[in-house]
Amino acid sequence: MTEPLRLGLVSISDRASTGVYEDRGLPALRDWFGSAVKTPWQAHERLIQDDQPTIEATLIELCDRVGCHLVLTTGGTGPARRDVTPEATLAIADKVMPGFGEQMRQVSLKYVPTAILSRQVGVIRGTSLILNLPGQPKAIKETLDGIFAAVPYCIELIGGPMVETNEEIIKAFRPKSAPRPA
Amino acid sequence: MTEPLRLGLVSISDRASTGVYEDRGLPALRDWFGSAVKTPWQAHERLIQDDQPTIEATLIELCDRVGCHLVLTTGGTGPARRDVTPEATLAIADKVMPGFGEQMRQVSLKYVPTAILSRQVGVIRGTSLILNLPGQPKAIKETLDGIFAAVPYCIELIGGPMVETNEEIIKAFRPKSAPRPA
Amino acid sequence: MTEPLRLGLVSISDRASTGVYEDRGLPALRDWFGSAVKTPWQAHERLIQDDQPTIEATLIELCDRVGCHLVLTTGGTGPARRDVTPEATLAIADKVMPGFGEQMRQVSLKYVPTAILSRQVGVIRGTSLILNLPGQPKAIKETLDGIFAAVPYCIELIGGPMVETNEEIIKAFRPKSAPRPA
Repeated sequence: MTEPLRLGLVSISDRASTGVYEDRGLPALRDWFGSAVKTPWQAHERLIQDDQPTIEATLIELCDRVGCHLVLTTGGTGPARRDVTPEATLAIADKVMPGFGEQMRQVSLKYVPTAILSRQVGVIRGTSLILNLPGQPKAIKETLDGIFAAVPYCIELIGGPMVETNEEIIKAFRPKSAPRPA
Repeated sequence: MTEPLRLGLVSISDRASTGVYEDRGLPALRDWFGSAVKTPWQAHERLIQDDQPTIEATLIELCDRVGCHLVLTTGGTGPARRDVTPEATLAIADKVMPGFGEQMRQVSLKYVPTAILSRQVGVIRGTSLILNLPGQPKAIKETLDGIFAAVPYCIELIGGPMVETNEEIIKAFRPKSAPRPA
Repeated sequence: MTEPLRLGLVSISDRASTGVYEDRGLPALRDWFGSAVKTPWQAHERLIQDDQPTIEATLIELCDRVGCHLVLTTGGTGPARRDVTPEATLAIADKVMPGFGEQMRQVSLKYVPTAILSRQVGVIRGTSLILNLPGQPKAIKETLDGIFAAVPYCIELIGGPMVETNEEIIKAFRPKSAPRPA
């Protein structure tokens, strides 16, 4: 039996976290995983403000104490003053994965020219992969559809469980030639 | 009536700034804005050497004292020893906007394989967006044509005026779904 | 007569360097240069472990003491704990060349979706260009085929010799309009 995938889902929004409007980020993330990932998963959810120390503390807790294999944030990646999700993510990172930021922007550029303005990053902390996703449910789905094929192999390379996907939605890729790390 | 757009234009070249040859960067930038931007704009122009402290001081002055909403540099982004425009820009930045550098290179790659060598960055300082453009007039136009659709929305998100463009040249994009920042 | 191109080739692998399996990185690099580069070249080869201080010391030696114009690494750019080649390369860099990392990933993405996971960087140290290549021989060739057109001009811009290529494999590009640096 495979180990369940521990997933951290973090919605970052001053207005949703203070009840000004309803959070739509966490439901969008849950929906996507419900349809795309076959391996049993448990979601650890957080709804927090656009505050850098709070974001950092939440990411550290989900990686180091909860032991999430994958942490996804939504919101706070734009150019506005309160958008500090990428800064918080980089501040607690062990390794930067520049390909994720680049490719998430390339994917979104197929839909909107303002994808250029997204400052999303992907990083590794310990044995957790952290990815910043956009804030809008539609863009969350577009981005995950566009990059998730590489995520299961990444999780394996950093010591996590094998993640099986619903191949009608995502065909996870594992290179035949690539040696597994020691 | 809309607030005029305050534009900082900075040509960075040892040879043009010392009169070895005529600067062609500032005229190319002025020409492009004359044809593409309908909102009234005023240009604050500087012609300086490839010297990191001078570039930093000039960018700080244009952002903090002149209050430019958008600052464009031309020149000094290559691999040579005196090319230090990106270093100067990053040194005075509040936020890095990685999508601009990536996309400017992608746009230029359609014209020349050596676009890989350009180290252009985009950053935010306070309420100013700063973009490094290439040095050649032809490449300045190609780059602005390729990325400017996202610039008006970015300027709005950081607190600047609404910028209207000549839609035959640039169709500025504003996402319907995106919430305006507080 | 042209100065010979001094090439540093560095294979980075715990297992190959300790004899667990045979190194295939250095032969793949030599083969590619044998077929693609016409200018006489000498290769200075190193086979080392995935250890950051060792990688840094090797790069510094090849750049500063051997005077290599171009140093190519293979291996150690993935997300696993022992993959530290990009960190070592950035730690000893004078200038980062972000276009190389971006474009190497774009090229590899045409072959495998997991190219996103590669953290390859390109940097300049003094008068040397350093590029991180993937670990697999097939991916080494694909990457060099995809980006080498811009390498000869880069080497010239940082003070190295003119590099002539076998145009059936690589057509080196030099922009007509670009001024040579002082």
